[in-house]
Formats: sequence, structure tokens, C-alpha cells
Amino acid sequence: MNGAGNLMDFLDEPFPDVGTYEDFHTIDWLREKSRDTDRHRKITSKSKESLWELIKSLLDAWSGWVVMLLIGLLSGTLAGVIDLAVDWMTDLKEGVCLSAFWYSHEQCCWTSNETTFDDRDKCPQWQKWAELMTGHAEGAGAYVLNYFLYVLWALLFSFLAVSLVRVFAPYACGSGIPEIKTILSGFIIRGYLGKWTLLIKTVTLVLAVSSGLSLGKEGPLVHVACCCGNLFCSLFSKYSKNEGKRREVLSAAAAAGVSVAFGAPIGGVLFSLEEVSYYFPLKTLWRSFFAALVAAFTLRSINPFGNSRLVLFYVEYHTPWYMAELVPFILLGVFGGLWGTLFIRANIAWCRRRKTTQLGKYPVLEVIAVTGITAVLAFPNPYTRRSTSELISELFNDCGALESSQLCDYINNPNMSRPVDDIPDRPAGPGVYNALWQLALALIFKIVITIFTFGMKIPSGLFIPSMAVGAIAGRIVGIAVEQMAYHHHDWIIFKNWCRPGADCVTPGLYAMVGAAACLGGVTRMTVSLVVIMFELTGGLEYIVPLMAAAVTSKWVADAFGKEGIYESHIQLNGYPYLDVRDEFTHRTLATDVMRPRRNDPPLAVLTQDSTTVEDVEALIKDTDYNGFPVVVSRESERLIGFVQRRDLTLAIKNARQKQDGVVSSSVVYFTEDAPQLPASNPQPLKLRRILNLSPFTVTDHTPMETVVDIFRKLGLRQCLVTRSGTELTLFISLSVQASPGYHHQEGRPATHGSNDEPGSRVHHVQLTEERRSFGLLHFVFWLIVVYCCMLLPYLY
Amino acid sequence: MNGAGNLMDFLDEPFPDVGTYEDFHTIDWLREKSRDTDRHRKITSKSKESLWELIKSLLDAWSGWVVMLLIGLLSGTLAGVIDLAVDWMTDLKEGVCLSAFWYSHEQCCWTSNETTFDDRDKCPQWQKWAELMTGHAEGAGAYVLNYFLYVLWALLFSFLAVSLVRVFAPYACGSGIPEIKTILSGFIIRGYLGKWTLLIKTVTLVLAVSSGLSLGKEGPLVHVACCCGNLFCSLFSKYSKNEGKRREVLSAAAAAGVSVAFGAPIGGVLFSLEEVSYYFPLKTLWRSFFAALVAAFTLRSINPFGNSRLVLFYVEYHTPWYMAELVPFILLGVFGGLWGTLFIRANIAWCRRRKTTQLGKYPVLEVIAVTGITAVLAFPNPYTRRSTSELISELFNDCGALESSQLCDYINNPNMSRPVDDIPDRPAGPGVYNALWQLALALIFKIVITIFTFGMKIPSGLFIPSMAVGAIAGRIVGIAVEQMAYHHHDWIIFKNWCRPGADCVTPGLYAMVGAAACLGGVTRMTVSLVVIMFELTGGLEYIVPLMAAAVTSKWVADAFGKEGIYESHIQLNGYPYLDVRDEFTHRTLATDVMRPRRNDPPLAVLTQDSTTVEDVEALIKDTDYNGFPVVVSRESERLIGFVQRRDLTLAIKNARQKQDGVVSSSVVYFTEDAPQLPASNPQPLKLRRILNLSPFTVTDHTPMETVVDIFRKLGLRQCLVTRSGTELTLFISLSVQASPGYHHQEGRPATHGSNDEPGSRVHHVQLTEERRSFGLLHFVFWLIVVYCCMLLPYLY
Repeated sequence: MNGAGNLMDFLDEPFPDVGTYEDFHTIDWLREKSRDTDRHRKITSKSKESLWELIKSLLDAWSGWVVMLLIGLLSGTLAGVIDLAVDWMTDLKEGVCLSAFWYSHEQCCWTSNETTFDDRDKCPQWQKWAELMTGHAEGAGAYVLNYFLYVLWALLFSFLAVSLVRVFAPYACGSGIPEIKTILSGFIIRGYLGKWTLLIKTVTLVLAVSSGLSLGKEGPLVHVACCCGNLFCSLFSKYSKNEGKRREVLSAAAAAGVSVAFGAPIGGVLFSLEEVSYYFPLKTLWRSFFAALVAAFTLRSINPFGNSRLVLFYVEYHTPWYMAELVPFILLGVFGGLWGTLFIRANIAWCRRRKTTQLGKYPVLEVIAVTGITAVLAFPNPYTRRSTSELISELFNDCGALESSQLCDYINNPNMSRPVDDIPDRPAGPGVYNALWQLALALIFKIVITIFTFGMKIPSGLFIPSMAVGAIAGRIVGIAVEQMAYHHHDWIIFKNWCRPGADCVTPGLYAMVGAAACLGGVTRMTVSLVVIMFELTGGLEYIVPLMAAAVTSKWVADAFGKEGIYESHIQLNGYPYLDVRDEFTHRTLATDVMRPRRNDPPLAVLTQDSTTVEDVEALIKDTDYNGFPVVVSRESERLIGFVQRRDLTLAIKNARQKQDGVVSSSVVYFTEDAPQLPASNPQPLKLRRILNLSPFTVTDHTPMETVVDIFRKLGLRQCLVTRSGTELTLFISLSVQASPGYHHQEGRPATHGSNDEPGSRVHHVQLTEERRSFGLLHFVFWLIVVYCCMLLPYLY
Repeated sequence: MNGAGNLMDFLDEPFPDVGTYEDFHTIDWLREKSRDTDRHRKITSKSKESLWELIKSLLDAWSGWVVMLLIGLLSGTLAGVIDLAVDWMTDLKEGVCLSAFWYSHEQCCWTSNETTFDDRDKCPQWQKWAELMTGHAEGAGAYVLNYFLYVLWALLFSFLAVSLVRVFAPYACGSGIPEIKTILSGFIIRGYLGKWTLLIKTVTLVLAVSSGLSLGKEGPLVHVACCCGNLFCSLFSKYSKNEGKRREVLSAAAAAGVSVAFGAPIGGVLFSLEEVSYYFPLKTLWRSFFAALVAAFTLRSINPFGNSRLVLFYVEYHTPWYMAELVPFILLGVFGGLWGTLFIRANIAWCRRRKTTQLGKYPVLEVIAVTGITAVLAFPNPYTRRSTSELISELFNDCGALESSQLCDYINNPNMSRPVDDIPDRPAGPGVYNALWQLALALIFKIVITIFTFGMKIPSGLFIPSMAVGAIAGRIVGIAVEQMAYHHHDWIIFKNWCRPGADCVTPGLYAMVGAAACLGGVTRMTVSLVVIMFELTGGLEYIVPLMAAAVTSKWVADAFGKEGIYESHIQLNGYPYLDVRDEFTHRTLATDVMRPRRNDPPLAVLTQDSTTVEDVEALIKDTDYNGFPVVVSRESERLIGFVQRRDLTLAIKNARQKQDGVVSSSVVYFTEDAPQLPASNPQPLKLRRILNLSPFTVTDHTPMETVVDIFRKLGLRQCLVTRSGTELTLFISLSVQASPGYHHQEGRPATHGSNDEPGSRVHHVQLTEERRSFGLLHFVFWLIVVYCCMLLPYLY
């Protein structure tokens, strides 16, 4: 029996799973980083040995770019497929293409001879359901039949979506961005980015968007791209075995997701940097940019919009803006900020009610009910019947001379020749007033229904509904300003910049500014938002209005509450997330928050050479701490290192199975050399290998803001506090990162001390804002009443 | 005599300068941050007391945005003034405007009746010097006189520039970006961003650019903007008294600088993020963006280019690019990478020679000589005679139908009608071939002269010369591809995408790609570079060519050496800079690099309650350490805290002057309470106030890569190493950040240990690459010979 040899073998070959993490735990960024450096060092030194190793090291170095390429290709392709499918299924609610049922309305009438915009809608190949079934295209019967089938399709789609999510992939619901933020900050949620989630989210996203619910595909596309990233990570051990490196890839994937959602690669990278990512080194910046570009160009080559444009909403304006217009732009910013606050409060209150009451037990019924209400209310109004992105697109567009939509029903001067681009201001015709009325109805409808939609158990993004609300409000304001300027050229505010017969006001620009303001109010993005909008218009000219609105909206919204919708949902779900943007303002020292407190039982520690296997097992059983400090002896509590609970459990289990002579009375040694024991004694168990020799320590006088800063920047899991200057140095463990309800407690952050047990961690949120939020819910119901009142004249 | 009361007063009121830093020292980011949190906390708690305090706290909260606004306004204005002055003085070298001498050539001929491009150059109000003096505009005599005056003006301008720099502001020389990088990473260079530097740099920048030297204004504009930032910091105590907060403002100012240099606000922010900044929180991202936008719009309202365009080089291309063109684009990328490597090596070798030999003693002579050579060689060639940015602008532009320059001298098909935009490929005329020859000469000239120009004692940017080199090379390649495609439509590589009579190749795009490649090779920017170029063209279409070239160029250049020109100059000057991008790959532990080593004298420490003032003064005198650990007693070296040398010196000096009873034999107490001593004993000196109670410690087993990471991310000045587990805990100070020649030593980074004395720190660089670099210099001289040979046929 060669005990020593056995011991050496055991030490050389790491047992499985050591250094991995349990589900719903946070990772140790420093350890991941140092493991990657080790791996890199090994490969570099090996590469000098042979040509094959050299090639392998080169492949390893390039694997990052390969992963980016693959992510770009797959997420671009998926985005294209989703766009095509959504187009088709949205139109399926209204009718079908007779020449080929898999064509959407636009594709169906593509080859039609009717070339004007008005007539193209009526191309013979495309038939509405009523026409197809009864032969009558017009009349009350056809309207009712179409209405009925519209609602039926919507219900079918949403039922399919929610059932698929329920049965196959519960993680596929929601926008995914709050969870991705948490994952990127170092939390582990197994399966959240898995293959099933990818598949089901893609399919159900198509269904959910097609069902006409007030939701968008942008947030879920980020989730889909991150799933792609996770999928390709598993191809390379460099990324699959290192949670830190994996998160670099995921950050880049998030950028690719936004890039395909809007066709804005630079905006996508900035979104990932500003909004989603936690650890974003420069290397990731380059790679994100690469992935975003590849994704955008893959999408363009699929060309789902049929116009070879990269961007979702392509706009081109011909008139500049004037300084005086900043006033309505800033007002739109204020509106955006207020809407953001209202939405966040009401939505969180509703989601909390869903969590805490019976409501949460019937997710399928809830989705069906909301879809039913949405479809029934949406059909009569042409601006809510069509898909939300089409609506936004129309609102953004300037009225050209050839435009025939209701919104462009201006009274033209018959004497005027019709140039294509430069049309002077004209008085609004009856169509415009009618459109304004319908838009106002649509605005209230969208505001209310979105609150109840976001957070249901289907994939749902928030960008498009927020932008729609802003675009409607903006367009209404824009038309109002335009008509004021036309009818009152002599008013002092218009005198300087708007002569009669000039094209002064672009209502489409107002819609765009409004959309930016509302999106900013909800998400609190600023730079990435402005850059995305800039990429849509492609001109620096309109950056100032967008910036003015976005910044105003952020300030107004921040005045009511610092958190955007994603942070609010992170808090609601109790994920452990330490926001980089939060400033820690309380004056506390580490000594005030550390555990154990004075009256608590002493810290559970291991000694370096006097604990037996039995003792360790008892300690693991009795406590639920994540790890244990190792000290010289109980008398002199000098720190040697820190050992993780999971590693300790695995090591002992492994040793008991594989290593002869390890019994309950074996002594566990954390020292470098175990003493030579007589053969009669039980075989010692050497565990220096799993000991972290460089645990992070601070003194008890360190201010908490510094400790929080260290946790944030280094991504620690725990930190030991040493008491300075006393003879007996105490080691006290302190965990900040994985602390739910962190922002809620006054005076000091909630700490789990050594007691950060995973189970209790996830659902543990203080409910302080309950009352105010329900006040807001009442306001929402009041809004519904107003909506119904406004509907009355429209019904006649 | 109320000693105790005295003591309390002294403790409550901080003595001046405590907590500030000496020149050429690094700041302690953690301390700055915690001081700012304290300040913020104080203001918040005060704001509840009275309305006035509330207003003051609001003003404080807004001061960041006010500073950004002011920076944007001033740097935009300065950039506009510089542009106008450079335009005027560049033209002054050739002639003068008779109607108003302060008009540049373009402004002078603005109102001229000659409207075609050809004739506008010959408007009667603008006269060349020879014409004005002798009355003859043509002929050898006039040519020689113009030549002579051109050289004379150039010499005058550069002499003025170098003299002003020498006499008034030595820090105004160079591009400033390496120093700004160092300052932003936490180093103090007093006066580098002062008012004098701002003034002199602005004036001499105009002179230097006008003198026709191969340098640009982009880098210096960043320096100018940072000076503005520093200037406005002094208005608000929030920024002037906190070196950490000040650096946030400076990062934003750097973004504003690039924003006005190119008219690219987004690119400017990304440049600051990618290239310059060290600590870039999200708040700074928003503020940088704001400052960059304000600066860009201030510049636009000054409108120095007279075309109300924001960007420096506005281009619009009408043809798409084809996949096959990626081959020449990537070749341009390779060229850019090689040029970057060549330039960096040769320039560093030359600068080192300047530093180490007699050459460095005659900066004025050097500038005069280089200007003379530049002017003499530049005048005969029309592409080098004009200003470099005009040259780049022409190279970037596509040849329209109305273009009359030599580069657009194509043979038109007489049967063809002339549409304005869409011109098919045409054969090149003699003018194009002539231009090609001159461009080749200009290329070699620029390559060589830039090496000797960058680093002289005048303000000199590198962006424009690098872009010029790339643009020339790109345009040559572009014309070559164009002519190949025209003459060989049937070749397999052109067959698929270039039919006869189509407009396939845009030589201007090649120039742009080449410029991006060369700029990328020199500076190693990628994302910010592509974004700046994207903002110039305003179309996402050309991102892929730019990206391909930029990434290739970076890879090629990185293969020869990881450092860009700025990092190389930082190293050459021995600034303490810890590059965020460097990966630390050596396997060392803190115990291997810490000081004192085994045989060194023991660490210099203070004890908490047994050192006298005399002892402390002796310690300060005998050692040059930056600070001292404070321990319980010499027998039990337990750490209490860390005290800075500067604070200690100031405190003792202050106490000696102001506090009665403090004499040499007074005991210095770092404990919380000094014991009550009999009146006969000398008054004790309590210094707990200046003691840092939470010094940063790591164990001696911590891997060095983790230590380096901690230094980088937390911006520490020093770190104490504790030896774990032994009875006697040792405290060993270790300083990584302020270590020159850090990258040079194998196996372990150079550390000063506790011995980081400032004087020896700055000029302390290993000269290992000397020989190879001088090999490159020989190559450069060989290039000069080729240039002269090529010049021969041109002279006939």
C-alpha cells in the first residue's frame, strides 16, 4: 500500500467539479480570472514544445473571434427568421395570400400591378377572411366576421405561446434583460441560457408578437442572442469551463442582440456597455463590435424588410429644426419621464400582486384574458390593429407629396406645383383630425394595456410599446405645433423662424423625439438610446433634440425614483445584484456590518492541522455557510486561507471513495507537509489544494463604501475582516454581493454574514412601496374610464 | 495654558495641504473616492437645515453639468478659432488677400464672380507674393520668389512656435496624449494642464500647423480641451479639491477634444473610453457625451469650414462596395500595420537618440532644420505644398463630373451624357498618371519626415500625418484597382461584379480605408477609429471595409509589438503607467516581489505610542519612502494603519509652529486616546487623524496577477503584504503602480518596494530594443535615397 504515492496522484489530478458553482450562487471573479491566467500560461508554455501544440495555442487564441462570428451569424439569422415569421403571422390574423399562403400581405402584393399606395392594399391575390369565406368584402357582416377571426387568431397565438413556455421552458418568459444583467454580474441561473430556452423563446416570441399584444421583440432578441452565445461557448473549453470568460462572450452577444433588434451595431455595443454588462474590458468592446456588425450584416443579407435597409425604422427628414422647437421637445422629455415613472410603479405593483395573490397561479388564463381584451379593443382602431412597429414607422415618417395615409390628409394649395420633398406647411384636413382622435385613443389604450402585459409568462419586450407611446404623443404634439405655426405665423414665437409658405415643422421628428423620451424614461438609458436613434436617422443634425428629450426624461424620472424598469424587476425578483451606478452614502465601517455580531456564536472556522474528517463533516452538516476560514489553531486565530463549502464537500466525498485509509478519524491537513505518522494512525487527508491561500481581507476600520467598491470592482464573493492591533486577531466573514434587499435597509446594507444560504436568498424583498404603487393602479383604472368615455363619440 | 483644548482645536481643523499630493506622485483613488463620499454626505445632511443650504446642494449636484457645458463651449470656440487662424496663416505662406488681409484664400475669393473651381483659384483679389511684389505672376523668377517666401514664412512660424514653447510653457510641446493618459491614470504633473499651457499651446499649435510641418492639430486639441477642463475644475471646489473627481472631468474633456477635432462626438466619447481614460464610470460616459455634443455644436455655429458641416472630411459615396474589394482593403490594412510598426520603432529610436545625445540640447535648431527641409521639399509637389487636411479631403473625395483637379483627369466618353453622380468607370488621363507619380513622392516624403517631426518641441499631432500616409497609399491602390477593372472587365476577379460601363470602384473609399488602417496601426484604436470614420461618412455601408482594414492593421502591428505610439512614448518618458490592456502572465506570488527582501534591512515602521517626534523626523530624513506602516510595537509587529510621508511631515511642521509644548521629545500617539501625562512631561502629539486605518493588505501567497489587478482596478498607491500563519506577522510594503520599466523585466515586475522615491522614478527605462530600432533608422535613410532618385525624373 503506497499511501504517499496515492496521495500524490490524488493531488495532481483534480477531482471532478472542483471549482464549479452551484445553481443560484454568485461566482468569484478573481478566482475565475486567475484560473484563466493559469490556463493561458499552460498553453503558452506547451506551445513551444511541438508544432501541434503551437497550432492548438493559435486556435485557442482565435477561438474568441470564432465564437463572435458564430454568434453574429446565428443571431442575425434568427432575427431575420423571426421578422419574416412575425410579418406573415401578423397578416394572417386579417387575411391570407391566395397565390401562396406563406406570403405576408406586402410580399403577396409585391408583384401586383396596382402601384399606388392606396390600391396596393387591395391587390386581388390578398383576401381578407370574410371575403374568402362569404365572398363579401364589405358590409357589417364581413366586419364582424373579420373582427371575430382577428380575435380568434390572437387568442390562438397567445395560447400556443404561453403553453409552450409553461411546458417546455419556463425561463423563456419576459424580456430576459433583468436576468441577463444579473447573470452578467456573476450570478448562476442554470438553464436560463440553455438550448431549450433558445428554441422555445424564438418560437414563442414569434407567436407573442403576432398575437398583437402590446409587446416588442427587442428585449427577447437580446435573450435569444445571449442563448446563442452560451451555446457556442460550450464548443470551446476556454469559455465553457470558465464562468468569467463566458460572461465576456455573453456581453458581446447582448450587443449583437440589440444590433439586430434595431439594425444599430454601435448602439448595440453601447447598450451592452451602459445597460447590461458588469465586467466590460476593452477586449470585449472590440469583440462586441465585431459580433454586432456580423449580426447586422447577416440580417441585412436576409433582408426581412424588403428594402435592403439595415435599420428597423428608416427615416429621412428634409427640414432642419429650430431652437424654439426645443420647448416642445423638452416637454416631450417631461412626458417621457412621467410615463416612465408611472409605468414602472404600476407595472411593479401589478407584478407584485401577481406574485403574492391567487393571480399568479393562472398564468395561461391571464395571458388569454389580456390577449382577448387587447384584440377586442385593438381591432376597431386602425392604429392599434396593425403591428406596433408598423405604427411607429408610420408615425416617424414625414408626409411626402405622394403619401396617401389618413395622417397625411392635408389640404393642398391647388395652385402649388408638387415638388417631391420640400412641401410647405399646409392646413390639416378632416383625415388628420380623425387620425388625431384615433391616436389619442390608441395612446391611452397602449399606456394601460402595456402595464398589464409586461411581466406575463410569455416573451415580451418593452422597447416597442414604450416607443409607440412616445411616438403617438410626439406626433400629436408635432401636428399641434405645425398647425399652430401655420395658422399663427405672426405670433412672436413663430415669427423668427417660420415664414408663410415655408416647411417649418416636421411632425415625424416630434414622434421620434417622443419615442426616445419614453424609452429613456422607462429604461434610463441615455447615450446608447441617442446613438441608436442617431443610427436610425443617420444624421448628426437631430442629436440635440434627441439628447434634450432623453436627458430631460431621465432627470424627471430619476426625481421620482432612481431605478429603471430592469433594476426594479431585478429587485422584485430578489436577484443579488450590486448596481454599479448606486452610490453608497451611509457612513458605516466594516465593523458595523460584519458577522458574527458581538452576541452571536463565534465564527465557524477550521484549523490547519487538528480537525478530523468527522469534525469537518459535522461542521458542514450543522451550518449552511458558503465557506470556512482556516486558522492556525483555535487559540491563535491566525488566518491561513479560506475554503469553499462546495469544494470541501466534494473533496471529502472523493477521498472517502477513492483514497484508501481515509476514515472519519483521519486528520485533515491544510499545511504544506503532513507529518509522517505511524502506519497505525489513519491516513491523513491533505487538502491544501482546495485552500484559497489569498483570501481577501480588510481591516475593521475600512469604510463600507470602500468595501462595497471593492466588491463591485473585483467581483468578490466574500471578504474577511481582520481586527487590527489587538493581540488576538479575529477573522470575520462578510458577504455583500449576494445580498437581497440591499437597497432597502436604512443605515447599513443587509449582510448575510457567513450565513448566506442560497435558498433564503432569492425571495427576500422588503415591500415598502406597496401603498403608493396601488394608488397608481387606481390612477390607471381611472385612465381606463376616460378611455371608455372617449370611445363613445367614436362609436357613433 | 490649556493644552488639551489646543489639541482639540488642532484636531478639528485640518491643517492646510493635508491629503494633497506632491508633484510627480500618483494619487490614491480609494482615498479620493472616500473623501468625495464624505463631502457628499456632509452636503446632503446640511441641505436639510436651511433653504440656502438646499440651494447650495443643488448647485453642487449640477456643477458637473455646468463644467461640461463650459468645457464644450470653450473647447468648441478654441477649435473654431484655431481652424480659422490655421486657414489664414497657411494661405499667407503663398499670398495675401488684397481686399482684406485677414481673409484666407477661400474667404477672399468667396464673393468672386468666377464660379468654376478652376477659375476661383485665380480671383483677382487674391495675389501671390511674387505677383504683389514684382507684378509678374508667372515665370521662373516668380516661382523662385514664391518658393523663397514660402520657406521663409514656414521658418518664421516654426521659430515663433518653438520659441514660445521654450520660453513660456515647455509642457505645451508634443501631442500631449501620452501625458494625459498618464495623468488620467492617477499621476500628478503640476502645470501640465495649466492656464499658460492652454494659452501657449493654442497659439503655437496654429503656428506649427501653419508652418507646413508634417503634423496635425488633433492630438494637441485633446490637450487644449483637457486644459479647459482643468481650468473650469478650479471654479468648483468639488473638482478642484479632489484629484479623482478632477480626472472624471478631464476624461470628458478629452472626448470633447476629439469631438471638435473631427466633428465626431460619438467617436470622441469612444476614443476617451478606449484610448485615454483609466477610470470611466457611467456618469462620466453621459457627461462626456454632453460635453462632446456641446463642443461639436459650438464649432458648427462658428462654422470655420464655411459649409455648415460638422465633420472635418465630409464625404458621400454613391456606389456600394463589393466582396472582392475586401482583398485590397485587407492589403491596405497590412500596409497600415507595417507602417504603424515602422513609424513607432523609428520614431522611438529617434526620440531616444534625441534624449541621450547632444541633439536634445538644440531643440530650436532642430525645429528650424526640420521645417526648412520640409518646406524646401514640400513646395515643388502640389500635394505636399498645401495643408495636409486639404490633401486628405481631396483624396477622400470621389471624382464627380464637375471635378477639375488633376486627380480627376479621366478621359470622358464624348458620347456619354454627363449625369451628376453616377459616372461609369473611365480610363485615366495623363493628369491622373502625373498625380499618381506626385502622390508616390508625397507618400515617401510624408513617411520619412513624420518620423522626425513627431516629438519635437512644438505641438504636434499624429492623426493627420498618419491619415495622410494611408490616404495617399489607399488612393494609389484605388486608382490601380479602378484602372485594372476598367481595362480587364473579363478577368475572373472582376467578371462577377464589374460590367463595362458601370461605376464599380470608388478610389476615394480606398483612401479612406487606407487612412483608417494607418491610423489604426499607429494608435491601435479599433472601435473608436471605425466610429469616427463612420461619423465622417454617415453611412453604415462602409463599416465593413473600415473594420476589416482596422482589425487587420491592428493584428499586423500587434504581431511586431503590442504597444501603440502613445504607450511607447509613455514608456520612453518613464511615466508610471499600468496599462489596463496588458495581461500579466508570469507566475509569481506577492512574496517574490515584495520589499524588503530577505537580506534587506527591516521595514521602516512607526509604533503607535512609543515614537517621539525626534525619531519620526530622523526616519523621514534617513529614508525616502512614501509612507510608513504603523504597528503596535516593535516586538509585535501588528498593523494599526499606514501614514503618508507628506502628511506626517506637514503635521509635525504644523504642530511645531502652532501647538504649544510639542518639542522633539514629545511622544507621537496614533492611538485613540493619549494617556494623561504629568504636566512636566512634554505635550504629546496626537496624529490618529492622519492615520489611514484601513490600509490595503494581501497575503504573501496572493498571485501577482491578482495584485496587479487590484492595483489597476482600485487605483492603489501601495499595498501591504502580511505573512499568513506565522506567529510574527510581517508587514511588507509593495508598490506596483508607480513602477517605471514595468514591462521590461522578465519574471517579475520591477517594484520599488517601500523605496519609491520620486526623483529616480521618472527617468529609468531599460534600453533593450536599441539595436533593432537603429536598424530601422537605416531603413528610413535608405527610403530617403529612393525618394531622391524618384525625384530626378520629376525635376526635368
